Amino acid sequence: MRFKVKVVNIATKGPLIAILNHEDATLLDLQALDRIKIKKGSKEIIAAVDISYSKKDINKSEIGLFLDIIEKLNLKNKEFIDICVEPKPKSLEFIKKKLDNNPLNKEEIDSIIKDLVENKLTEVETTYFISACYINKMSLDESVYLTEAISKNGGKLKFDKKFVVDKHCSGGVPNNRTTPIIVPIIAAAGLTMPKTSTRSITSPAGTADCVEILAPVSHSKEEIMKIVKKTNACMVWGGTLDLASADDKLIKLERILDLDPEGILLASILAKKSAVDSSHILIDIPIGKETKIKDVKQGRKLAKKFIKIGKKLGMKIRVILTDGSHPIGNGIGPALEARDVLLILQNRGPLDLKNKAVCMAGIILDMVGIKNSQKKALEILESGLAYKKMQEIIKAQGGNPNIQPEEIQIGKFKHEVKAKKSGKVNYISNNKISRIAKIAGAPFDKGAGIDLFVKIKSEVNHNSVLYTIHAENKEKLIEAIKEELDKAVIID
Amino acid sequence: MRFKVKVVNIATKGPLIAILNHEDATLLDLQALDRIKIKKGSKEIIAAVDISYSKKDINKSEIGLFLDIIEKLNLKNKEFIDICVEPKPKSLEFIKKKLDNNPLNKEEIDSIIKDLVENKLTEVETTYFISACYINKMSLDESVYLTEAISKNGGKLKFDKKFVVDKHCSGGVPNNRTTPIIVPIIAAAGLTMPKTSTRSITSPAGTADCVEILAPVSHSKEEIMKIVKKTNACMVWGGTLDLASADDKLIKLERILDLDPEGILLASILAKKSAVDSSHILIDIPIGKETKIKDVKQGRKLAKKFIKIGKKLGMKIRVILTDGSHPIGNGIGPALEARDVLLILQNRGPLDLKNKAVCMAGIILDMVGIKNSQKKALEILESGLAYKKMQEIIKAQGGNPNIQPEEIQIGKFKHEVKAKKSGKVNYISNNKISRIAKIAGAPFDKGAGIDLFVKIKSEVNHNSVLYTIHAENKEKLIEAIKEELDKAVIID
Repeated sequence: MRFKVKVVNIATKGPLIAILNHEDATLLDLQALDRIKIKKGSKEIIAAVDISYSKKDINKSEIGLFLDIIEKLNLKNKEFIDICVEPKPKSLEFIKKKLDNNPLNKEEIDSIIKDLVENKLTEVETTYFISACYINKMSLDESVYLTEAISKNGGKLKFDKKFVVDKHCSGGVPNNRTTPIIVPIIAAAGLTMPKTSTRSITSPAGTADCVEILAPVSHSKEEIMKIVKKTNACMVWGGTLDLASADDKLIKLERILDLDPEGILLASILAKKSAVDSSHILIDIPIGKETKIKDVKQGRKLAKKFIKIGKKLGMKIRVILTDGSHPIGNGIGPALEARDVLLILQNRGPLDLKNKAVCMAGIILDMVGIKNSQKKALEILESGLAYKKMQEIIKAQGGNPNIQPEEIQIGKFKHEVKAKKSGKVNYISNNKISRIAKIAGAPFDKGAGIDLFVKIKSEVNHNSVLYTIHAENKEKLIEAIKEELDKAVIID
Repeated sequence: MRFKVKVVNIATKGPLIAILNHEDATLLDLQALDRIKIKKGSKEIIAAVDISYSKKDINKSEIGLFLDIIEKLNLKNKEFIDICVEPKPKSLEFIKKKLDNNPLNKEEIDSIIKDLVENKLTEVETTYFISACYINKMSLDESVYLTEAISKNGGKLKFDKKFVVDKHCSGGVPNNRTTPIIVPIIAAAGLTMPKTSTRSITSPAGTADCVEILAPVSHSKEEIMKIVKKTNACMVWGGTLDLASADDKLIKLERILDLDPEGILLASILAKKSAVDSSHILIDIPIGKETKIKDVKQGRKLAKKFIKIGKKLGMKIRVILTDGSHPIGNGIGPALEARDVLLILQNRGPLDLKNKAVCMAGIILDMVGIKNSQKKALEILESGLAYKKMQEIIKAQGGNPNIQPEEIQIGKFKHEVKAKKSGKVNYISNNKISRIAKIAGAPFDKGAGIDLFVKIKSEVNHNSVLYTIHAENKEKLIEAIKEELDKAVIID
């Protein structure tokens, strides 16, 4: 059947959509979300159908096409094209199979992820897959297949090295910015650590947001290969790399109900590691009431699964359960965290963050067989070798290697929160600290956030400053001050 | 925050969507499918956000709005409007609750259905609800709440009568068009039977498609009330009435994976009955390898649930399990089925369909306490009273009451399928017969379909005609002939 193209000036990067008038759809026996094949010359694409019921938009014999399709087929407005009805993709059968609580094999999971990445599944269909994995759970084998499928159907970086190391943190603890300290230690020790990180999704800063204060983090595959060749490491944003594009599509739908199906979570983390060729991975699971993993039992269970799946994929994984009950470091927010990182590399800065980063770097060195690894990690840091490596990495990524902690711009509007009584700090709320930093503007306002001066068990005097809120504009500072500031740090 | 309106010339009748540039979305901390409130003067609506990544479509400070929103707020292109971020609806919590296999109470289910009907839930969110009901099943109580919620949040017809009767068939058997025979019998007996029916979804004809051959079936609420007042009955398409608009939205998403979550199925059927004020309902469950319900055990289980839920809703329900192993009647397709119906009402036509319809009418009469009900139903039919009533209904709905079976236009392109040997008809495939009728053009080509001359156990001679395929154009007839015609009727 022939249709006249009507260009719809919208591109959504998602599943391809074609809009038909409901009369034409009835004639073709098509219903919403059925599929059609659109042909132009030798090119063809498959799109899902949406149906228009308004006479004002898509008339009979017209087909509304979003820019994604217009560009792919190089179409013009009012041009005539042929369409035909296309059967549903085979992967839908496998999604139904999982909904019916039957296990999926390697080929079936690969087929689902391949179609997902190629925009052949609609969001509704993908949601059925997520629901099935969430309610019916995934077996270890299924998680392995999913990891392989996500990694296979995405970009890859390949390093010709015996050891390629990586780290991951399950998150939930403000600051805790160990990565930019660990990476230069490890790289200075001669190991390869091509670190890709995310930007913040719900926190006041992601590692990519923090590193971006010091150097550009958006690089092409080729640039990253050069940076790693030059410095043994990199600290870049994973988003430009399409390392796990299936993962992004799944997360977009999961976050609607704050779902985090464990099988998909495991696969999503390990697929990104596999995509950068990792051989040895250290995973940090902070345990605390206000982190993702609430207790040690849950943490141990998750750790076992990480290790098992890693083994099946040929990756050596070690997991540490750490204290996630309170923030680590002082600054919270991109600029404030970058300042802490530089201070520590210059042998200044918060000790708790330094100690945690050195400890983790030591474990990574131990994993690849380096002896006296803890001592060695500390030496590399304290001798200034790590700082020198950091300067190399910053330079290779296009930043200023000589930037000093004091030069990092912190939001100039500020408010000091003071102790209402003398006593001992009994509780610091991860969630409240994060929330105040976000209201103050983090991570979008780079200089916004919190500078926290106390730790758990710190003795404080009445009216001493507990933390300073920084913002880049007055309105956001005022909004942040409206939060229950004294409940973020509790003194007994 | 202020935005400049950009009209997107598309209306989709579904959830309301606003498109933002990804830079603005980042600033507002909005992600795809988050919600915003759009205000103009005293009017405001809530829309889900879609994010545009192309510079060609939605620029910074622009907001792309579909016609649904443009019309609701009476907006103009390039006009400035205010938007603010809107929290997620409470019903999402309840959907999550059901995903986590916790039972939902009456208020929670009502809140989900209310938001669904008011287009406040996106299709992805509704899909999570369907998945949860499908995998975690619904309890009888939940089905009752869902029935009430669907019926409450839709249109309603109210009759001031002690008995309002109805019937339903779970489907899967070609022809089996009992409704237009039962309705005039019941109405002639003095009972009220306001029958709303669907059009075909996957079959060669729905009751509405068949009745439409004889009279218009799209009527407003007011028209229907008049028709029923005049004749005790009606036979209309339910689609114009919004009797269960939640149901339509659920079915649209269920059919993608051919899901039919039992709890939703039960609620969807009974909500429509409750919406037309039914007090007594007869449900026909055909059992057969090629119908929805495969065996008697499954049928009995479903019957019990219908009866229990009906009881809780104050509706008296009787269920019959019938033989669904082969087609009933001769014609398959809108016109051919309408012809059978008129023939039977005129004391001609296929006996199997006549007997089934009379039997069901008798049961309905018995349900409301009429004695000798089977005999009475037969008398009403054979005396011509039912035919007279049918003529009244056709007239009241705006059709020609004097139309004769011979005047109904059947597709003039035809092909006779003949027996390849003498013998006894051993099997008639519901699915194959339906499929051939659909390829020939049914239900869109009203005159297309199949005229079936044999029954199970019929003795046939070599070369005698088993069935004729009718089509309204040659191409579709040729396509239909390509099917495996001899496998539709098997002779031993």
